Order: sequence, then structure tokens, then C-alpha cells
Amino acid sequence: MPRNGEKVRKSLQWAALELFRDRGYEETTAADIAAKAGVTERTFFRHFADKRDVLFDGEAAFSEALTQAIRNAPKAFGPWDTLLFSFGSVKQMFIDNRPFTEPRQYVIAATPALQERAMAKTRSLVTNVTSALCERGVSEPEANLVAWMGMAASSYGVAAWFKDNSMGLGEHMAQAFEKASRLSQSNFATTKTTATSSEPRARGR
Amino acid sequence: MPRNGEKVRKSLQWAALELFRDRGYEETTAADIAAKAGVTERTFFRHFADKRDVLFDGEAAFSEALTQAIRNAPKAFGPWDTLLFSFGSVKQMFIDNRPFTEPRQYVIAATPALQERAMAKTRSLVTNVTSALCERGVSEPEANLVAWMGMAASSYGVAAWFKDNSMGLGEHMAQAFEKASRLSQSNFATTKTTATSSEPRARGR
Repeated sequence: MPRNGEKVRKSLQWAALELFRDRGYEETTAADIAAKAGVTERTFFRHFADKRDVLFDGEAAFSEALTQAIRNAPKAFGPWDTLLFSFGSVKQMFIDNRPFTEPRQYVIAATPALQERAMAKTRSLVTNVTSALCERGVSEPEANLVAWMGMAASSYGVAAWFKDNSMGLGEHMAQAFEKASRLSQSNFATTKTTATSSEPRARGR
Repeated sequence: MPRNGEKVRKSLQWAALELFRDRGYEETTAADIAAKAGVTERTFFRHFADKRDVLFDGEAAFSEALTQAIRNAPKAFGPWDTLLFSFGSVKQMFIDNRPFTEPRQYVIAATPALQERAMAKTRSLVTNVTSALCERGVSEPEANLVAWMGMAASSYGVAAWFKDNSMGLGEHMAQAFEKASRLSQSNFATTKTTATSSEPRARGR
């Protein structure tokens, strides 16, 4: 049976992940998780507020590390480069947590209650990233816009990294930001200047 | 007292908005809302599942209109232009709903339970937008990335339109998408390659 607090937390997280996966989130109680981890239910609630929180331990530490990286980013960087730099700075956290977060994604995808909590965590992270960008002199609306776009790009990068191990996370992240940049360009402007005058039809196939 | 169903729904929505604003969300019951709208509590629950839902009526219709516009967008458009085109296509819905959605934003900003519901609505909208883009041949990960970025851009555009009436929503939306495009470019790379540009990229104010 694990002794120290950190080990207990980890055991509870893994127990929860496995039970949610094998038995379903609704069918799993905090007592089940505690039993599987070899501790009492009371110990469970000393560590976590509820069974949803078990899967999101460490999000506060991640948010803190990311916003600190934003503060430390080179001054010459605009907000977009700042975000890419910052996600790169905390990539070791993604790498360390991958054994847990990679299987976790399937459990979240199958569980609306966990999706809701995941969205709340994302929203809170975006709020913190927005504040950190504002400290660098970005206006609040622009900071918020960039924070959401950067969050979308980083999610894309992490998902690509989960699927393809031929490149490291840093490269996947850089490619994701690059892809986001390209995807948010108007291709119609190009179409207009290259294809002479034919207005595209207003209907799809 | 309002007679037909649509009028009752509208009365309930306005009553809820005003009560949440004046008295606070937690302190307002469905019965309070019904009383203010001049109907019974039972009538309230014939129209809405709970008091949170009252403020988000019409989101399904909006999602349907937006995804239909995505299907109807010119084939030559890439995903980004498709989204701008589609938000433009449904702008009348934003305009019609503005008297309600503009004051609503302050109530949501003050109420965590409503923020959660708003995020869930956004997430669901992104899921639908992603599917509609996939129907146009965009890969799922890219469609999801563009959908999130477009959602962030449209939120920026609507917020700017709320603040500044000197331009219409269509122009604000186009500017927001343009701003999102610019903000998601690497200014570091630009600094390196086009040092001669007379218009340096914004590094924030």
C-alpha cells in the first residue's frame, strides 16, 4: 500500500482512470476508487473534492508553469510567438504526463460530465493566459482571442503527437501553430487575384 | 398576459434576464421568473428544462442556421473563408437577438453556473461546425482547429460590435477574422524576414 501523499494521489488517479475506462464513470464511486487504490474513502476525500477532479489533478500547476513561461518569453515576441514559446517551455510536463493523459482522452471523450469539467479547466486556463498576455501589453480582447486560438493550436499539436511518435512534441507543437496560421488565412483572396473574374457560385454541390 | 407560446417564451426569457441581473441568479427561482412573466411555474417548465436554459433559448436554431450556411458556402472557399461567409449569412440572427444577448453577457459574466452552460453551448456549436466542415472535405483535426479559431474570432467580432456602433456586424466580423489571421502570424519570423516593412506588426500596445 502506498505511503506518502504523492504516491497516494497517483494511485487514486490511476485507479479512477482504470475504473472509469473499464466500468464507466457513472458506475464508479469514490469508494470504488479508494478501494482499488488500497486506501479508505476518507483518504480519497482528503485528496480530491469529487470523483471528477481525480482526472484533472495537476492542471493548476500546468497553468502556473504556462503563465510563468509567458512572462519569461522574449520581449520581442508578439502574442502568438509568445504562446508557442510558452507551450514549448512546458513541454516536459506534457511528456511526463502522457502515460496518464493519453488514455485519459478516451475516458473523457466517452463521458459528458468529464467533458464539462475539461471545458471548465480549458476556460480557466484561457483566462489565466489572457491575463499573462495582458501583462505584456496586449489588449484584453486581443489577448483573449489569441489565447483561444493558441489553445486550439496546442490541442491540435498534442493530438498529433499522440498519433505520431516520429517527431517530438516540440516539433508537433511548432507545426500545429504553423498550421493554425495557415488555416486562418483567407484562401479566397488568393482565388480572387489568381482566377480572373468568375464569382464562385453561391451553392455547394 | 401573453397568450401564444412564442410570446410566453419571450416573456419568460426577459423576466429571467431581469431577475438574474437585479437579484442574482442564485436568488432567483423558476417560480419567481414565472410570476414575473405572469404565468404559472408549470408553464415555465413546459417551456424550459431549468432556469439556466432560459437564457440560451434559440442556440439550437442558431447552430442549425450556421451549419446550413457552411454547407451552402461557395465551394472555392477554404474553411476559414467558409466560416466568415457563414457567420455573415446568419448575422440577422445576431442583430435580432442583440437586445437580449447584449445585456445577457453581463449576467453570464457574473454567474459561474451560466458560464458553464455557455461553454457547453459553445462546445456543442464547435462540434456541429466541425462536422459541417468535414462534409466539405476538411479533415477532422483541421476542421476542429478552424472551428475553435473561428468561434474565437466571431466572439471577438460580436464583442467589438457591442462596443462600437459606427460599423455594422458584417464589417466587425470581417475585421475580427482579419485580426485573428494577423494575430496568428509569427511576428518573430516577420521581423527577421521583412525588416523593411513600414508597418511593423503589432506587439500589443
